[in-house]
Amino acid sequence: MSELGSSGAAAQNEEVLRARAYLSRVAEPPAQALGRFVDQVGPVVAAGRVRRGEVPEPVARETSARRSVDRAAADLAAAAAIGARLLTPEHEDWPHWPFAAFALSGVPELAPPLALWVRGPGRLADMCERAVAVVGARAATAYGVHIAGEVVAGLADHGVTVVSGAAIGIDGAAHRGALAAEGLTVAVLACGVDRAYPAAHDALLVRIAGSGLVVSEYPPGCVPGRHRFLVRNRLIAGMGAGVLVVEAGVRSGARRTAADAGALGRLVMAVPGPVTSGLSAGCHQLVRDGAVLVTRTEEVLEAVGRIGLDLAEELAAPARPTDGLEGVLALVHDALPARAARETRWLAMEAGVPLAAVRAALVDLERRGLAEHRDGRWRRPARARAG
Amino acid sequence: MSELGSSGAAAQNEEVLRARAYLSRVAEPPAQALGRFVDQVGPVVAAGRVRRGEVPEPVARETSARRSVDRAAADLAAAAAIGARLLTPEHEDWPHWPFAAFALSGVPELAPPLALWVRGPGRLADMCERAVAVVGARAATAYGVHIAGEVVAGLADHGVTVVSGAAIGIDGAAHRGALAAEGLTVAVLACGVDRAYPAAHDALLVRIAGSGLVVSEYPPGCVPGRHRFLVRNRLIAGMGAGVLVVEAGVRSGARRTAADAGALGRLVMAVPGPVTSGLSAGCHQLVRDGAVLVTRTEEVLEAVGRIGLDLAEELAAPARPTDGLEGVLALVHDALPARAARETRWLAMEAGVPLAAVRAALVDLERRGLAEHRDGRWRRPARARAG
Repeated sequence: MSELGSSGAAAQNEEVLRARAYLSRVAEPPAQALGRFVDQVGPVVAAGRVRRGEVPEPVARETSARRSVDRAAADLAAAAAIGARLLTPEHEDWPHWPFAAFALSGVPELAPPLALWVRGPGRLADMCERAVAVVGARAATAYGVHIAGEVVAGLADHGVTVVSGAAIGIDGAAHRGALAAEGLTVAVLACGVDRAYPAAHDALLVRIAGSGLVVSEYPPGCVPGRHRFLVRNRLIAGMGAGVLVVEAGVRSGARRTAADAGALGRLVMAVPGPVTSGLSAGCHQLVRDGAVLVTRTEEVLEAVGRIGLDLAEELAAPARPTDGLEGVLALVHDALPARAARETRWLAMEAGVPLAAVRAALVDLERRGLAEHRDGRWRRPARARAG
Repeated sequence: MSELGSSGAAAQNEEVLRARAYLSRVAEPPAQALGRFVDQVGPVVAAGRVRRGEVPEPVARETSARRSVDRAAADLAAAAAIGARLLTPEHEDWPHWPFAAFALSGVPELAPPLALWVRGPGRLADMCERAVAVVGARAATAYGVHIAGEVVAGLADHGVTVVSGAAIGIDGAAHRGALAAEGLTVAVLACGVDRAYPAAHDALLVRIAGSGLVVSEYPPGCVPGRHRFLVRNRLIAGMGAGVLVVEAGVRSGARRTAADAGALGRLVMAVPGPVTSGLSAGCHQLVRDGAVLVTRTEEVLEAVGRIGLDLAEELAAPARPTDGLEGVLALVHDALPARAARETRWLAMEAGVPLAAVRAALVDLERRGLAEHRDGRWRRPARARAG
């Protein structure tokens, strides 16, 4: 009985694997409709109905082009031949918690992967538990490569998995830094895990697969493409607690990864550099847009710790919106009416604060969510009026 | 009658000038108690009572050491001999609005000056109306000097007065950049305006006094000292709408100026640089502490404009604390109870969001003033509960 049950379960697992392998090729990621359909009916039923074209219109749009192509067995065999395997949501190594953010984002471009082709001894769920993505420019400077290596070695020393995209430049420096410190690293590819892309990173990818993981949502043999790099970036963003951008141009893939990270509720961090360097311009823009400026490992750990294990420490210091309001800020806040909005001049009289200082204080209060304006008049925000 | 009245007024002005000259030497700035005493009884009466020792105890503490020294006439003559003059709060060129922040701060170290010795054709109140302080390290790198010069030339082109401390390094680069662009610049010294300090800036100070202003609260002949540099920094911070730090060590006078600026409600801005440079470390720390990262003139103007003339533009886009709440943030915010605080696990269930994502969202919401915690439980903050 027990053996029969076990072999029944194995057969079922095999069926799920083949279904997921088929599904991982039938739609070009991200495939939001197909993913939701699979969640509803399960992978085996979903694969059968996709094959027969018996699916809702949105799923058909994503799958009709490739539904007659079933290379599941061949893909699984190709993966096995190079020591790779298909990791599915049904497996205990699937990082459910981190990946939940994909579906929760509601953004079609951030739909979760249907399965991941993985190569290496790493267990993805474990590795994602304490992970940071480190990304940046391909045309990195010696400065950027140096900083990436330094920061990443420190992260590895602290048991943090380093996730990156295996590209030339910052990505490569990040993987190498982690390996040099004997840390764990995950390379997320925009092509099949059987391909060495970029070719110059052939040996590096072998080393990553030797101790960590090389990962892709594209089946073996798939070639990379511009769209796939962009789509792949969401996986890099989603695997860690945060994304560190080391060097990036104003328009760059790294900034796209950072945008994905923000949409997924991940912390975005950026390393500053000379303002004369176009490859630091993207980092500076990220900081101006709210990313945390970091200059060394400790600052990354502090930032990531804040949203991870170390949250308990933060709990010791509860904060209120009006905390730290002193001097002019406190005077102007006190003067702000709860309902009828008032002009700046009226506030200056009421607070006994000069006009210029009132204006500065109002901008600050607005930033803290303690003041709002309309038609040139100011008051406390609707949500804060109870106080 | 008219001539008699006019000469009476002139005599009165002369009396006020002599009183302020005496007061500017009798106490070591900042002299909060003396300043308040002068505000109460007027400078002439205050000077007389200080001379006779008929003052409240706090004022006596500040003035007893020097009250018998009256070099007012000699100081005024020494100033006149080099084309300098004493600017007092009674004069129309006194920058009342910007300086009001000193008294309003309530911080003794930020007490307003009793008078200013000024040299040059500039009118201080006019110059402060659109001014930015640009400060930084003495041991500046070529990078810092280059950036300071670039940014400052742009500010000067836009009619912004550049305030700095005439020190070697970034300060000097700031003054030179303004002069090169035929802009206005103010040098605030920690010694008498008759002294060339640093000596290497002798010619630079003469050029600044030729078109702008060299300013000090210390009477002619006074020598600089460590304490006076720190005290002087508050004047630099107070004269502009913001302070731009170009290069600074982690512990530096520039960071002190930035701290003063913050306490005075001024905008603090910092230029990033290589994280490998100790002279950018202070700037990076400032950004981590909330300063605006700026990389070029336009970003300084944008930041300063926000608290100055360009405020009207900002008015077009009213902001609410809950603006931009999407995905997980919105779900968690919706789940947050208004009164009874709840544990993270409860919130995860209620919001249908994984625990890790709930934690990240709570930190973000707390930063926006939309969540607060106590004893490990979370709720909406008291002030925001109305919504």
